[in-house]
Amino acid sequence: MRLSNAFIPTLRESNQDKESISASLMLRSGLIRMLTSGVYVYLPSGYKALKKIQSIIREELDKVGCQELLLSVLQPIELWKLTGRDKELGQTLICFNDRKSRTLCLGPTHEEVITDLIKNNLFSYRQLPLIVYQIQTKFRDEIRPRAGLMRSCEFIMKDAYSFDIDDEGLDKNYRRMCDCYKKIFSRCGLNSYMLEADPGVIGGSMSHEFMVMSESGEDKLFFCESCDTAFAYQEGKSAMCPECKKSLVTKNAIELGHTFKLGTKYSKVQNATILDDQGKRRTLIMGCYGIGVSRLLPAIIDVHHDDKGIIWPKQVSPFDVAIVVIDISKPEALAFANKLYSQLESSSKDVLLDDRDVRAGVKFNDIDLIGAPIRVIIGKDWENSKEIEISLRGEKNTTLKTKEVDALENILSLIEK
Amino acid sequence: MRLSNAFIPTLRESNQDKESISASLMLRSGLIRMLTSGVYVYLPSGYKALKKIQSIIREELDKVGCQELLLSVLQPIELWKLTGRDKELGQTLICFNDRKSRTLCLGPTHEEVITDLIKNNLFSYRQLPLIVYQIQTKFRDEIRPRAGLMRSCEFIMKDAYSFDIDDEGLDKNYRRMCDCYKKIFSRCGLNSYMLEADPGVIGGSMSHEFMVMSESGEDKLFFCESCDTAFAYQEGKSAMCPECKKSLVTKNAIELGHTFKLGTKYSKVQNATILDDQGKRRTLIMGCYGIGVSRLLPAIIDVHHDDKGIIWPKQVSPFDVAIVVIDISKPEALAFANKLYSQLESSSKDVLLDDRDVRAGVKFNDIDLIGAPIRVIIGKDWENSKEIEISLRGEKNTTLKTKEVDALENILSLIEK
Repeated sequence: MRLSNAFIPTLRESNQDKESISASLMLRSGLIRMLTSGVYVYLPSGYKALKKIQSIIREELDKVGCQELLLSVLQPIELWKLTGRDKELGQTLICFNDRKSRTLCLGPTHEEVITDLIKNNLFSYRQLPLIVYQIQTKFRDEIRPRAGLMRSCEFIMKDAYSFDIDDEGLDKNYRRMCDCYKKIFSRCGLNSYMLEADPGVIGGSMSHEFMVMSESGEDKLFFCESCDTAFAYQEGKSAMCPECKKSLVTKNAIELGHTFKLGTKYSKVQNATILDDQGKRRTLIMGCYGIGVSRLLPAIIDVHHDDKGIIWPKQVSPFDVAIVVIDISKPEALAFANKLYSQLESSSKDVLLDDRDVRAGVKFNDIDLIGAPIRVIIGKDWENSKEIEISLRGEKNTTLKTKEVDALENILSLIEK
Repeated sequence: MRLSNAFIPTLRESNQDKESISASLMLRSGLIRMLTSGVYVYLPSGYKALKKIQSIIREELDKVGCQELLLSVLQPIELWKLTGRDKELGQTLICFNDRKSRTLCLGPTHEEVITDLIKNNLFSYRQLPLIVYQIQTKFRDEIRPRAGLMRSCEFIMKDAYSFDIDDEGLDKNYRRMCDCYKKIFSRCGLNSYMLEADPGVIGGSMSHEFMVMSESGEDKLFFCESCDTAFAYQEGKSAMCPECKKSLVTKNAIELGHTFKLGTKYSKVQNATILDDQGKRRTLIMGCYGIGVSRLLPAIIDVHHDDKGIIWPKQVSPFDVAIVVIDISKPEALAFANKLYSQLESSSKDVLLDDRDVRAGVKFNDIDLIGAPIRVIIGKDWENSKEIEISLRGEKNTTLKTKEVDALENILSLIEK
């Protein structure tokens, strides 16, 4: 994209969400905008990053045999009455009556729907084990939406559901999904910690949260700096690490994902059964596995930024590389920038080219704010030196001067590194 | 995917939607399921096809410089009151009050939201022309939902919006988008016709519909068989082709897309303006361009099927190739099928492998129903002959017998053809 006509409205200051660094940076770097309290729109570069996160999730889940589908936003209230969760969620569940007086709700989660679907469409135990997932927009009527995408009324989740004939199958799938989660978060540039959690309104016998440490996180946990392990936080108690016997420290963290061994909580009430190989009717054993997809964006930014802006991890950056032409009134410099831009785009790289007619200071500020991992500067002296400067956003003192002829190769090798 | 544990629940007969061939085939071939009237879920193979359609749309729009973003489902009612469209849409617009008595609606379209966004975030006329688009789930409280995905309460649309400083800019963008639409539909296997249409509740000075001829289409149009041109249908009138002066015939058709020259309909009321290069304040000139993404699925199937099932056009088929092992009790045959499956998957092809322990008749029926363009049969005689049969779903008498050693190459060349 060329910044001259890209829709990336950067801001010098943000009045919204002073409370959160990531929310402020997302607004200032033109990734998102708030439409109304708790409701956000993704601008082009924000949506680019989101799609990269989604691709990583799809790749890792597909690798372990999960099948993607897409459930509906609209759900009949009858399914929720069956499990009693309409009462449990209370006002958080958004409901309305349609013109035929049918009561529908906007899915905040999809356990009931998937259980109903599998119940009606699973024909043989031989199709088990089965894990299906979706990346879907979900809705909650939040009392206090806050911090941009961290807690909003409309958000994007990846939710997966496993179905097994017995507990051993569930245990196996559960381990598989937890391993997969570590990989997904790691590829997103997040070092995640898995810790036991309260199953809450989702339910089941066992549950784990996946957390990333971040000063601005709204969750708290205990952390052992000696053995690099995280533990659930209990209010008002200091604690010792059960392994090292060393004192635990309190850390702020952001919840990235949550997994649940549901067992038969839903399948029993909804009567989701299958005949086993002995012809005996068995209630399906379920697991469910969520990732807050839209929340990953602020989580990544919370962890990866400095006082100038975002420092995107390579795999999820909206742009692989940003090219800045300091003085666009120099035709040779602009011509070279355009050539480099086309060559990189032909290699399927996402490139941002700052070809605006603005001061160098504005360009440097914006490029730091937007945070592409690799920055290429075509300076004022181009016509004489034919040299460009390549630097890494995250590292100081890494500026590499390179001649025109080597520029493309050097940039490509930095992207692949 | 291996049919033994893929979640592709094929049905011999369908009781739902007898009225529509595509709706019936989508249910029977395991692409979708109805959750409640007008609300559908996409099963894995249905969602695969949908994602391929979305990729084609993205590729073609990105090529002409459109920028993808993602607006919200939830919209504040105030925006709709400003344009008066809350009244115009009436009960079709789904509204609810949240716990803070804020009235929100579920977007059936996004003209108000995008106008508001651009108004607040476009800083210079130099960013124009600008075209943004999204692929988004939309909602309508339909009086009579029908024919599966043809007219449902929850559906997926691609909506694009162009912004220009003058009418000449709009004309240029409008032509660009219409050309783009022809390419998109063509890549989806649909021969589309563009004809003038009533702007209706969207509004503006000029509007075109993109239609595909289909016997089961719910729209009607006049068609000139001599010059291959379509005209809007006026009730009760027979007509002559203005070019050829020949009689027009009436045809059924499905609406795939709709484009509108909005002009200043929204920007004027919402006060979306920009200073031009003379420092003069100008009201933005808008166009809007919709494609019924989820509707393309039944449209494609309506056009491409026979009495046995779907005949997917290559580019949008959930599977590039289907491999059928007639007798899975033969280990050599199964081993070869697995090898071929892995090789094709490594070449990034979507492969369906029927490795189920069911009768040959069931396999043939399902594979025709599911409709992959290329079918590979590993027959009962494999251990002796080491020959496989490759045939094209859409063409009779195209069976090619090939030896083991040539199988992969032959299949790959058919996929690429």
